[in-house]
Amino acid sequence: MQETAMSQEVQQCIEECLLCYQSCMQEAMNHCLEKGGEHVEPRHFRLMMNCAEMCRTAAHFMLSSSELHARICGVCAEVCEACAQSCAQVGDMEECIVACRRCAESCRHMSGMAASTQDLYGSTRVKAPM
Amino acid sequence: MQETAMSQEVQQCIEECLLCYQSCMQEAMNHCLEKGGEHVEPRHFRLMMNCAEMCRTAAHFMLSSSELHARICGVCAEVCEACAQSCAQVGDMEECIVACRRCAESCRHMSGMAASTQDLYGSTRVKAPM
Amino acid sequence: MQETAMSQEVQQCIEECLLCYQSCMQEAMNHCLEKGGEHVEPRHFRLMMNCAEMCRTAAHFMLSSSELHARICGVCAEVCEACAQSCAQVGDMEECIVACRRCAESCRHMSGMAASTQDLYGSTRVKAPM
Amino acid sequence: MQETAMSQEVQQCIEECLLCYQSCMQEAMNHCLEKGGEHVEPRHFRLMMNCAEMCRTAAHFMLSSSELHARICGVCAEVCEACAQSCAQVGDMEECIVACRRCAESCRHMSGMAASTQDLYGSTRVKAPM
Repeated sequence: MQETAMSQEVQQCIEECLLCYQSCMQEAMNHCLEKGGEHVEPRHFRLMMNCAEMCRTAAHFMLSSSELHARICGVCAEVCEACAQSCAQVGDMEECIVACRRCAESCRHMSGMAASTQDLYGSTRVKAPM
Repeated sequence: MQETAMSQEVQQCIEECLLCYQSCMQEAMNHCLEKGGEHVEPRHFRLMMNCAEMCRTAAHFMLSSSELHARICGVCAEVCEACAQSCAQVGDMEECIVACRRCAESCRHMSGMAASTQDLYGSTRVKAPM
Repeated sequence: MQETAMSQEVQQCIEECLLCYQSCMQEAMNHCLEKGGEHVEPRHFRLMMNCAEMCRTAAHFMLSSSELHARICGVCAEVCEACAQSCAQVGDMEECIVACRRCAESCRHMSGMAASTQDLYGSTRVKAPM
Repeated sequence: MQETAMSQEVQQCIEECLLCYQSCMQEAMNHCLEKGGEHVEPRHFRLMMNCAEMCRTAAHFMLSSSELHARICGVCAEVCEACAQSCAQVGDMEECIVACRRCAESCRHMSGMAASTQDLYGSTRVKAPM
């Protein structure tokens, strides 16, 4: 039996998710808490924490070659997009906006690919017997 | 200013998610690993771990009153349903099937409610001043 | 082969950890963000989020019958204690103080038991064949 | 008020933790599950999942500039070391061994530094008033 070969595109999306997780967590817990004001307004701060959590979970699904990763990536793209928009409204959050937009794009791509091909893991993948 | 009052239905769904997380994690890491065979077949075992992760994340979104929790609950219901079906095929996983089905139903309800009302948190919710 | 029987004390500690996780996450993301002021002071808010994360991780270790759970529970007790103290200083955080103190006590107990007995899972534990 | 500047050493340790998380999760959920046999022996597989969880949590503590990160890094180093040893016994896990050893070393360093200096975040750090 050949083992699962993870495609470069999946690997790339995992990295974007973990970079976005880092950016949201680090900015929220340092920049936002230290600036205060609009930066700790509930709707914005929640989105930062939710985006961190969702990105971490999307990475988990891809790392485990989950057959459901495309559904999770689709929702992750939405959360990242909402977070990027909230960051743009608050201002002074450029680094986080970049990370969220890159992750959203990568996750949307992952979600669409899976919808059309049903299998992201390429020709060496051997399905486990059910 | 009145604070967010979390509805009984949201609280109930959080509890189902955390019970399903516990059931999937505990069964996978004890029952499945100790039984071996079909219980550690990749597709089944991944679903167990994915379901645990997704339930934990859905709980996080509800606990933080995320405006996006309905989207996450919708996907969580799908993951739980897939896990329950896989458990039924493998056999000897009754406890986990019950937890997954209860959680799936609660998450579907949460997802649908939000779609129709746009706000699960009821009349006492007052936006925090920015 | 007999399967691992999780002792009542481990099960109780898992529940305290997940209750403390819920309390810290819910209070931080609702009560604290909505109150503002001292409630979102960086040191306090970080402790709330750290305590939530640590409790979730301690539960994960116990649910998976990890041989290292006692070490993790020991650190979890410290984090919970620090969070309870911070909540007491900020004020108006009674529910969270109770959850943190209960979890700290349960985790300390778990940590000490393991140190003295090296095995929390009792006489029914049988190693799975390799 | 100047904002927290995260030192290069903390940033490096966060990266080692997230690389080790990825390695453990990916190897466990693909290589180990697909190989079977000793690779899914309970003690080994649990250590892989525990190590993934602990590394993710250590990264969370450092990303949030937690004052308790040194304690968490100390335990994380122990978990990584135990995982590396288990991988060495099972065999055919070289990549994971490297990631675990690098992370263990970085976490031990972090743990020791903090013990001696009480502050990893350098001269620009301004303590929040209590």
